[in-house]
Formats: sequence, structure tokens, C-alpha cells
Amino acid sequence: MAHIEFAPSLPGILGPLAFRPETAKPLNELADVLLRGPSSLTRGERELIAAAVSEANGCGFCARSHAAFARRQLDNGDQVVAATLSDFATAPISPKLKALLSIAHHVQAGGNQVTTDDVAKARLHGATDVEIHDTVLIAAAFCMFNRYVDGLATSAPDEQGAYDAMADTIVQRGYAATMPIPNEG
Amino acid sequence: MAHIEFAPSLPGILGPLAFRPETAKPLNELADVLLRGPSSLTRGERELIAAAVSEANGCGFCARSHAAFARRQLDNGDQVVAATLSDFATAPISPKLKALLSIAHHVQAGGNQVTTDDVAKARLHGATDVEIHDTVLIAAAFCMFNRYVDGLATSAPDEQGAYDAMADTIVQRGYAATMPIPNEG
Repeated sequence: MAHIEFAPSLPGILGPLAFRPETAKPLNELADVLLRGPSSLTRGERELIAAAVSEANGCGFCARSHAAFARRQLDNGDQVVAATLSDFATAPISPKLKALLSIAHHVQAGGNQVTTDDVAKARLHGATDVEIHDTVLIAAAFCMFNRYVDGLATSAPDEQGAYDAMADTIVQRGYAATMPIPNEG
Repeated sequence: MAHIEFAPSLPGILGPLAFRPETAKPLNELADVLLRGPSSLTRGERELIAAAVSEANGCGFCARSHAAFARRQLDNGDQVVAATLSDFATAPISPKLKALLSIAHHVQAGGNQVTTDDVAKARLHGATDVEIHDTVLIAAAFCMFNRYVDGLATSAPDEQGAYDAMADTIVQRGYAATMPIPNEG
């Protein structure tokens, strides 16, 4: 049971977002800018970073959600997401994305775990300053979202269909669209 | 040296915020709503939670900044902040704030570290659902801000005067006001 009573129709982060619309607005805006805004990283690549960090933080709801969003937006999504979450070093992804995932995992462990070598390696494989910045902020932001979801002990659906349905909304309409209409839900 | 070249006049989070205004907007809005918006927790109490989490994450820039912002906005700020950051259980603060700090420290360690007992204790001392929600989100948000600041290896001023000067801006004008004018800095 969640630590605060949320609408039963709203699993995971959707409960707290509906409970406190004042904070939901910047949180959804941050997710939309970081994961869907103009970027030289594809939406699928950015969702893959979000899923990997959520998996490392042990946040089931976020890991399954963002894995579903990544699968839907990557070529050969099923295979790429499974391989990356299992061992990104051997996954069929670019050397640049591997280097960015390495940075993301170090951010997850703690900001000062990111080394000059991590960043040099990413640059060697073509990562730009903005890509390095955004990778650090995506990883940091999921250290927030994961703690928000689990710190309030929200519920996570068992059935895969629930995550696939969320993927339909996110891929088509973005994060701000997940906000329920006030007084509904 | 920071992992990305930021303007030398902009220490800590100010460098990355100026570097990427698209993400700075929701980040500053989140800080303003959470730490300064309408709430039954005082601004000083909320800054104290932010400072305690930043200290636990070992983020010097954020810990010193938010300690300065808390000191400025709490009665007997110098004494209360020092005592709370040293050992909040024995600090001269309310039992409710102690219970909320305990929740915040558990969020910092990992979302699933927050227990039903933590939350029951906070309620026993009069904490509302919104106060519990906001405490979880403040603690989670500083797990992001701290990783953002340290994950990019930003600089932190040595001299206390730099943090006191930031406190002037934040206390009077809020977080969005910290954004430098574009092309400046």
C-alpha cells in the first residue's frame, strides 16, 4: 500500500503527479525536454538511458515503463533493450551510446563517480558537450523519479499490457499528456 | 576542472543551468515550487531538508548553498542549521521536522528504504499527506541536483561569502532569478 492514498486507477508516478499538480508541471516538462525535446540523441536512446538507470536503482515501475518506451522507439527495440539492460558493454548499440551509458551508471552510483576518463571516452566516440550534459542530467533525473515513485511506495502493475498502453500515450503525445484531467482518475 | 567548459563566473549548478536553458527552466521552476511555493512547511524548514540531503550525498556546493539559504530563513538559523546537520535527532527542531528529516534521509539512501513506520511517526507528530509528499520529493530532487552538480565536476567556491551572496538572491527573488541573462556570464 502506498504511503499516501492515491487513486487506484493511477499506478506508479501517476498517483503522486495527480496528487500534487504544482510539482507535476515542472516534472513533466523536464521529462519532455530531456527525453523528447530536440537532441542529437534519438528518443529511443534517451529512453534506454532512463531505463538502465531505473533498473540500477531497482525501481520496477520506472524500469518497465521506460524499457517499453525505448522498445517502441528503437529499431529492433525488443532485442536492443533486452541486451542493453542485461549487459550494455556487449549490446548491439553504438560505441558512443555505450560510453554515455557508462557515464549514466556512474552518475547513478553518485555524482563524483564520473571520471575524466569516462568523459574522454565518450568524446573519443563522438559525444558532444550537450550529449554529455544531457546524459548526466537524464541519469540524475531518474535518481529523482525512481526515489519519488519508490519513496511513496506506489503500486506497479504486473501485466505488461499496462506498460505498453502507457507507451502508446508517451510515444504519441509526450509526458505532459499523462496528467489526468483534474477531479478525474 | 569541470567535464564541460562552463563560464568561470558561474560556480556549481549555475554553469550547467546557463549552458542548457531548456532544462534550466523546469529545474528552477521545480525548486521554486518545492522550496518556496505555498506550503505548511516554512521555507527555512524545506531548505534544511535540502541541505541535509545534499550533505548526505557529499555535494559540497549544494550543501553549503542550501545551508546558507536555511540559515537566512530560520529563527536562530546559525545554531539550528549546525545542530541539524551534525545530528538532527538532538537538534532544536520540532518532532515533526525530525520525522520528516528521517524520511528524507531514507529517500537519499534509496526510495525503498522509506518504511511504513517512518511515515506513521511523521503523521503522529502532525505531518500531513502533502508534507510527507513534499519531503519525499525534496529529498529525491536533491538526489538529482547533487548528481547534476557533481556528475559534471562543477567548481565550488571556498569562501563563505559566495554562498551568502547567493542566499541574498534566492531569499529575495527565488530560483528562477539565478538564471544569467543569455549571452552574459
